[in-house]
Amino acid sequence: MKQLSEITVSKAIIKRLPRYYRYLEELRNEGVERISSGELSERMKVTASQIRQDLNHFGGFGQQGYGYKVDYLYQEIGKILGLDRIKRLILIGAGHLGTALANYTNYRNRGFFIEAIFDRDPEKIGTLVHEIPVYSIDELEQYLAKNKVDIAAITIPKEEAVKVAKRLTDAGIRAIWNFAHTDLAVPDTVAVENVHLSESLMSLSYKLKNM
Amino acid sequence: MKQLSEITVSKAIIKRLPRYYRYLEELRNEGVERISSGELSERMKVTASQIRQDLNHFGGFGQQGYGYKVDYLYQEIGKILGLDRIKRLILIGAGHLGTALANYTNYRNRGFFIEAIFDRDPEKIGTLVHEIPVYSIDELEQYLAKNKVDIAAITIPKEEAVKVAKRLTDAGIRAIWNFAHTDLAVPDTVAVENVHLSESLMSLSYKLKNM
Repeated sequence: MKQLSEITVSKAIIKRLPRYYRYLEELRNEGVERISSGELSERMKVTASQIRQDLNHFGGFGQQGYGYKVDYLYQEIGKILGLDRIKRLILIGAGHLGTALANYTNYRNRGFFIEAIFDRDPEKIGTLVHEIPVYSIDELEQYLAKNKVDIAAITIPKEEAVKVAKRLTDAGIRAIWNFAHTDLAVPDTVAVENVHLSESLMSLSYKLKNM
Repeated sequence: MKQLSEITVSKAIIKRLPRYYRYLEELRNEGVERISSGELSERMKVTASQIRQDLNHFGGFGQQGYGYKVDYLYQEIGKILGLDRIKRLILIGAGHLGTALANYTNYRNRGFFIEAIFDRDPEKIGTLVHEIPVYSIDELEQYLAKNKVDIAAITIPKEEAVKVAKRLTDAGIRAIWNFAHTDLAVPDTVAVENVHLSESLMSLSYKLKNM
């Protein structure tokens, strides 16, 4: 059987993999040991053939008439997503969104370790947010020179976000989780995942209007 | 020319429309009156033919050799997205994420009016968050019976989110903006837009691993 990492995977499947991972985690927590593609299909509201097709891309984890081994599939999808590796994060912005992220996404069991928060508010600098220290944004380069950081989450207004993204990539950051209402211009060697909340709300407005 | 509302639009285009809207808003704020599909293409990092194809779905807003009228296109896309209508919102959860949303998405110029926040924490009930009153979650049905609400944003943990979503849809809510780490089972008549932050972070982990 081929190593999973050798296989090229389409963007659409990559969008679906975290959802498979979430459902498999739920099944695992419920003590389910194996599941057919039909049962998984019903739970996930995805066709069984879509599930089979997606998972066959990785060499096929199921056995005819037996279904998928939940824990095995969960672990393998985790590896494909890189969740078995340590990923060190910093947050830019100690506002409500930054604080929510510090609380929600410090998933140590998935390899995400939030290690520092940067802000420019003197009231916040030197405090702890969910046990994570808040540093001055002026110390960003100094911190990055001393500490290996993989991902920076940006939760500040767009004008400042553009400047900070430049500083981050100049300092060697390889991945940006962007919450600012803008698309950041970063080198092709930097991974970016955007969460544009205002666009999501506009999409909902469209759906509401057309229900 | 056909009325825009009569035209059926694919899901993929609807995902792109809020992004067009955001770029047109920026151009408008910069005082740009018209733009060619080539220039828009360069700014948005989308091919010019994709832009022409997308906008032609709505009857074509451009003129050969003239380009698009920025303000007109901005207004028309806003109408397609339903931004010219008032949409009354409530937030479920007055935590950091709820507070961030109250701050970020009270876009009155796009027709979004956040009118109330519901929480179960006695310390928060009766206070104001960014000038929006916080009520007890026990008063939810009573509030919805008296006030017309279009959209509810859910920012509470998944177990409670599932129960509250049921209460919301039973009370006639037509659209849910879901931030809980679960897919809500709601009637087909209810519009749902999910923001699964943990899945977004896992996608970024995948991209980082494969850069």
